[in-house]
Amino acid sequence: MTHHSIDIRIYYEDTDAGGVVYHANYLNFGERGRTEFLRHIGHENSHLAREFGTIFVVKHIEIEYVRPAFLDDLLILSTRIEDMKNSSFKMRQTLTKDGGIISDMQVALVCVDANTLKPVRIPDVLRHAFQKFIV
Amino acid sequence: MTHHSIDIRIYYEDTDAGGVVYHANYLNFGERGRTEFLRHIGHENSHLAREFGTIFVVKHIEIEYVRPAFLDDLLILSTRIEDMKNSSFKMRQTLTKDGGIISDMQVALVCVDANTLKPVRIPDVLRHAFQKFIV
Amino acid sequence: MTHHSIDIRIYYEDTDAGGVVYHANYLNFGERGRTEFLRHIGHENSHLAREFGTIFVVKHIEIEYVRPAFLDDLLILSTRIEDMKNSSFKMRQTLTKDGGIISDMQVALVCVDANTLKPVRIPDVLRHAFQKFIV
Amino acid sequence: MTHHSIDIRIYYEDTDAGGVVYHANYLNFGERGRTEFLRHIGHENSHLAREFGTIFVVKHIEIEYVRPAFLDDLLILSTRIEDMKNSSFKMRQTLTKDGGIISDMQVALVCVDANTLKPVRIPDVLRHAFQKFIV
Repeated sequence: MTHHSIDIRIYYEDTDAGGVVYHANYLNFGERGRTEFLRHIGHENSHLAREFGTIFVVKHIEIEYVRPAFLDDLLILSTRIEDMKNSSFKMRQTLTKDGGIISDMQVALVCVDANTLKPVRIPDVLRHAFQKFIV
Repeated sequence: MTHHSIDIRIYYEDTDAGGVVYHANYLNFGERGRTEFLRHIGHENSHLAREFGTIFVVKHIEIEYVRPAFLDDLLILSTRIEDMKNSSFKMRQTLTKDGGIISDMQVALVCVDANTLKPVRIPDVLRHAFQKFIV
Repeated sequence: MTHHSIDIRIYYEDTDAGGVVYHANYLNFGERGRTEFLRHIGHENSHLAREFGTIFVVKHIEIEYVRPAFLDDLLILSTRIEDMKNSSFKMRQTLTKDGGIISDMQVALVCVDANTLKPVRIPDVLRHAFQKFIV
Repeated sequence: MTHHSIDIRIYYEDTDAGGVVYHANYLNFGERGRTEFLRHIGHENSHLAREFGTIFVVKHIEIEYVRPAFLDDLLILSTRIEDMKNSSFKMRQTLTKDGGIISDMQVALVCVDANTLKPVRIPDVLRHAFQKFIV
């Protein structure tokens, strides 16, 4: 298996007066997906600094809006890793409804020292866990 | 059983620079709980107007913040009905963590005609379903 | 003058698929109004802890939704102080459009020690500044 | 002048438990900037469908996060048009603090028929107004 999936249910909070999911909120879904991916491999955002002295920072996002999503929709967000370097990696996150693509997102993250915020090598235990989700 | 419960996981989007869940976001959780309560009894927000020609409008909210919640917390939101009149009803929603109360919210909703937005009698099928969740 | 006012412009982010301003977002407007009120009397949220060793915590909110607001609306949010005790105070915030009330909110805040989070006396310099805005 | 600017003040609602502005909220700022740009040239989002029978839909966003922003920051968001085709155009939006870049965003929008949602030619009156903001 090379990806990790979660369900995203659409509530009023996610929609806008255009009757569709508001475009910025797809980035919230992405954050939830990355957080659950991390939890799936045994780690929590709130413990990373304590465990490793590092945190992940979002550096770049590219998102394609393919089809709108609507109130009460049940979507599937799949998350995988596309590339991993010394201190940075890219995640690819695809949101689908009934198999059809809603949005496609690429997120570049950097591993930084929790105190200095300078880029540092991704901790080995995370590198090995990530490896399994690289396409 | 007189209440309905859902899990609420806390993500970065829910928190603020104070390090806790941002106070306005508790109202989002409440909306999710009411939506899932409605779905549990067989109805969807997006179909109410079509099914009954009515929608529910939030008229009043009272919320007590008892204890803060934090990133990665897994909370339980329980929803029940406290009072039902001809065209309005009150929901009581309690958010807990490990059995301790985080927040306690009372929400007054009015059933209105989807076109005129004038208050109308709550449809009988919903009245009967609500009845079971009255404390 | 016993109140402080700011403009609130409604953007897509504030609305929902019902075509109106999403009910939880009124609490964001309230927070902006309280923050600008504080700035108006010479203080910033991000400096309170450093200046006084205290922060303000929202304990209770009661909000009445009178009339809906819509995309592109320009609203006025007026903020005043209704009551001040030793360590707590109440703010009253009214949102209007063309003089008609959209929502009416009461917010109870507590002054707590920034480290222990225990209630402490509101610093005198703030007490005196607040005094002028008590109805 | 080839760009349009607005102020963005950072409130608690914009921040997260990392102590910085939450990454998804930069897209809200972008939407505000595009809305005020449109208002500046004489049009409102909520009137576009009525005026022209068209609406603008976000198709693609690319955002670079250069430096974090914090609670109480006062940022400047500048918006300009980078490219305009028959039915689509690109906006470039840069967020700065004291002249230093916080984030840099490119947004591709498509002009669609408000009913069929099919791409249509950007109305001439808007084309001419946009022309002045092309870099």
